[in-house]
Amino acid sequence: MSTQQTILGIDPALGTTGYGVIRVRGSTIELVDGGVIRCSRRQPLEQRLEELHQGISEILSEFRPDAFAVEQLYSHYDRPTTAILMGHARGVILLAAQQAGLPVASYAATQIKKTLTGNGRASKEQMQFAVQHQLGLPQTPEPADVADALAIALTHHNASRTPPGVLEQFLP
Amino acid sequence: MSTQQTILGIDPALGTTGYGVIRVRGSTIELVDGGVIRCSRRQPLEQRLEELHQGISEILSEFRPDAFAVEQLYSHYDRPTTAILMGHARGVILLAAQQAGLPVASYAATQIKKTLTGNGRASKEQMQFAVQHQLGLPQTPEPADVADALAIALTHHNASRTPPGVLEQFLP
Repeated sequence: MSTQQTILGIDPALGTTGYGVIRVRGSTIELVDGGVIRCSRRQPLEQRLEELHQGISEILSEFRPDAFAVEQLYSHYDRPTTAILMGHARGVILLAAQQAGLPVASYAATQIKKTLTGNGRASKEQMQFAVQHQLGLPQTPEPADVADALAIALTHHNASRTPPGVLEQFLP
Repeated sequence: MSTQQTILGIDPALGTTGYGVIRVRGSTIELVDGGVIRCSRRQPLEQRLEELHQGISEILSEFRPDAFAVEQLYSHYDRPTTAILMGHARGVILLAAQQAGLPVASYAATQIKKTLTGNGRASKEQMQFAVQHQLGLPQTPEPADVADALAIALTHHNASRTPPGVLEQFLP
């Protein structure tokens, strides 16, 4: 792949949503930006959703990614209320992607962990280390929400690459 | 109350979202409009969310309500996935309200049923009949999603009225 691709990864949450932007050029992957969108718990839900939607929209305008990857919501939260609230947050995040004309790719937490470390049950520390290693960073991305978002972007890059086996068939 | 108030009630869903608009003037309550926003299940989630957000925003621009009332999501869905998906839908609905500068009032299903019929476990038919009766309609609103949305608007009207006891203290 000789063209350049910018991938935005989002780790959705209602309190602290992590985002990570990577740029892929050939076999080089570089970190462009990473950070969090924080919404105060003291505000009404609809205000937090507006801040989150606005935050994602601003990131989309600033980095103009070619791909948008997000973590799948799993259905085994401790409390059903958490799952419902997370759904609200993820809803406005997906809306922002769609409004920017970007298709959304979703990855399950286990797939992200497996892609980055080979282990679908990797710990937070292992994930942070893998992200640091793959992006050649001098230190682990902090907070962990940023590492999670970068891991999602890296998983999308991995999933969207042409599998080597397919190309090799056509090589001498 | 001599001023006029327009109330929009929303029954949130990802497939068929009901809406109902009522206008209150003094002791008169009239139906302004009611209908549904349908999103095809064959589309990707993010497209359905955009259609839903756009649909709600259009209703808000057309009727310019003074109040926005929505059903609370309950946490006892049959499947956790349903709760999560409903959360996505409700998230973009609340966002549309917030973007229009409207505070959101939420009511639990049991409260809505109790307000309309006196029975927190009223059937769909009883609810439709109560809505028809309170709005003086020649027939029951169809589909039931519209009746549900109108019931939410009527509940908000009921909840936001000055309790008679308070006013009576100042009357001769």
